[in-house]
Amino acid sequence: MQQADFQLIIIGGGPAGLTAGMYAARGRLKALLLEKGATGGQVLVTDWVDNYPGFAEGITGFELMDKMTAHADRFGLEKKFATVDSLDLVDDIKTIHLDNGDRLTSRTVILCTGAKPRKIQVPGEEELQGKGVSYCATCDGPFYRDQEIAVVGGGNTAIQEALHLTKFAAKVTVIHRRDELRATKILQEKAFAEDKIDFLWNARVSEIVGGTGGVESLNISYNDGSTSSLPVTGIFILIGVVPNNEVLPLDQLETDNYGFIITDDEMCTKLPGVFAAGDIRSKNFRQIINAAGEGATAELSAEHYLGNQV
Amino acid sequence: MQQADFQLIIIGGGPAGLTAGMYAARGRLKALLLEKGATGGQVLVTDWVDNYPGFAEGITGFELMDKMTAHADRFGLEKKFATVDSLDLVDDIKTIHLDNGDRLTSRTVILCTGAKPRKIQVPGEEELQGKGVSYCATCDGPFYRDQEIAVVGGGNTAIQEALHLTKFAAKVTVIHRRDELRATKILQEKAFAEDKIDFLWNARVSEIVGGTGGVESLNISYNDGSTSSLPVTGIFILIGVVPNNEVLPLDQLETDNYGFIITDDEMCTKLPGVFAAGDIRSKNFRQIINAAGEGATAELSAEHYLGNQV
Repeated sequence: MQQADFQLIIIGGGPAGLTAGMYAARGRLKALLLEKGATGGQVLVTDWVDNYPGFAEGITGFELMDKMTAHADRFGLEKKFATVDSLDLVDDIKTIHLDNGDRLTSRTVILCTGAKPRKIQVPGEEELQGKGVSYCATCDGPFYRDQEIAVVGGGNTAIQEALHLTKFAAKVTVIHRRDELRATKILQEKAFAEDKIDFLWNARVSEIVGGTGGVESLNISYNDGSTSSLPVTGIFILIGVVPNNEVLPLDQLETDNYGFIITDDEMCTKLPGVFAAGDIRSKNFRQIINAAGEGATAELSAEHYLGNQV
Repeated sequence: MQQADFQLIIIGGGPAGLTAGMYAARGRLKALLLEKGATGGQVLVTDWVDNYPGFAEGITGFELMDKMTAHADRFGLEKKFATVDSLDLVDDIKTIHLDNGDRLTSRTVILCTGAKPRKIQVPGEEELQGKGVSYCATCDGPFYRDQEIAVVGGGNTAIQEALHLTKFAAKVTVIHRRDELRATKILQEKAFAEDKIDFLWNARVSEIVGGTGGVESLNISYNDGSTSSLPVTGIFILIGVVPNNEVLPLDQLETDNYGFIITDDEMCTKLPGVFAAGDIRSKNFRQIINAAGEGATAELSAEHYLGNQV
């Protein structure tokens, strides 16, 4: 058997990577978790997590990730804070090149690099994230009971979620840059029939205005040059999700049209010994709990692969 | 649109069902969770859960299920404690017949009926479960550091897990009722080469003997009529998993050779509006965390299905 530095290297320390790492450390694999920033991923900047099963009263994103990190640490997971430059995943021994010139080898790799919401890149968006600016209606919708909110987007996700948000909000204004929706006809019909939903057509948000209590209003500019102000306490930006795949060897992996990695049900990519879990996977629904579940499955698949190797 | 009593009925209140229910209640679906016993499923009788991410110090199975139940309750999930007699899942409106004669209808159904380990059905097995009798090496292996333990079985799972258990235990005795293993050749070779693994061939456990501290020894009977006693502190019974599918309409669903339900990656069965999550699904690895993750995905798939219906 060719020698490698590790039996398993996990790339990325969000919920999927931390769960895979916790399982690997507990299972006594020689494993390493690589993370370029702090462990926790996107959840770190999530104000409040209300739907991770078992934390019945909710928990801050920071605290949940602190607990998941402590959980992996308790079993002695080896972690390295370093930025990956490139990967070669084709051969039996996988090679990871770091940007400091170091080179690590492993028998298996789990890719957990995550994804990020597409942003509208206007003033206020960054500062008010978690204080009225949200990218996930499932996560944050219930916090806006009886309030007036906005949805940016015109695709299936935006319209489905605008409909979903009417269960909570007093009024939902859909802001779309074109004069018609891209969403399927049936969703359009439902949205047009819903009294709580208004539309602003040919419109873009030019600024998100907030105070100490969070979002207060949106500045809107229209394609004809006119402008207006819309008072809302929340804005859901639902214009797509972007995979964190910059360092991944996309020529070696199978990806969907958006650059997310395709795996089977057991988190195996098309390359033997290479697995993916969490938001980087091609899938419909990105949640903390299913990322964690996939991390466990990917690690067990990696153990199974190692067990069947000479 | 035809009317139904509910938008979603969830069958089974283990980690998958409770997570689906929590998501549904939080998402304000008109949903019902049906459970014949107490919510929690198999985990209720799991002594100690060490690998549910976020509970870094571990937690009793009872307490974890209590928290998951409280989480769903907090959002007002409607629950009904009743035994399902039969289901008709083919039509647009799904019908659930209860054994008290009641009949419930729903637009969608998520099947979370779970699975159970196959037992050897000998004295001591039931009484000592969680006190040295285990059905999951991934879950419980790390508790047996430097101890002498036994594995019952000769298939891939048994031998793979026997090898895994050598990372913790001082000695692992594999007890198999035949004179050769069913496991693949490479696993056999690894097991035969492993100093920590012994074999008892043509042998069955006739009794698990324990004291107040848990399992103490096994009584073994051989095919030739002889008997012996094996001192161990733990016994892993790894002879298969049985789906809880007795009430499911197996003629309407697609199942694997063992009777587990086949779904796609988004937990959709072949029947529109019918989903499955957790241990009842056809899959390689059954863990609390991936059951919970699948419960969330199944619920979001059900919402998506409802959103796209007239």
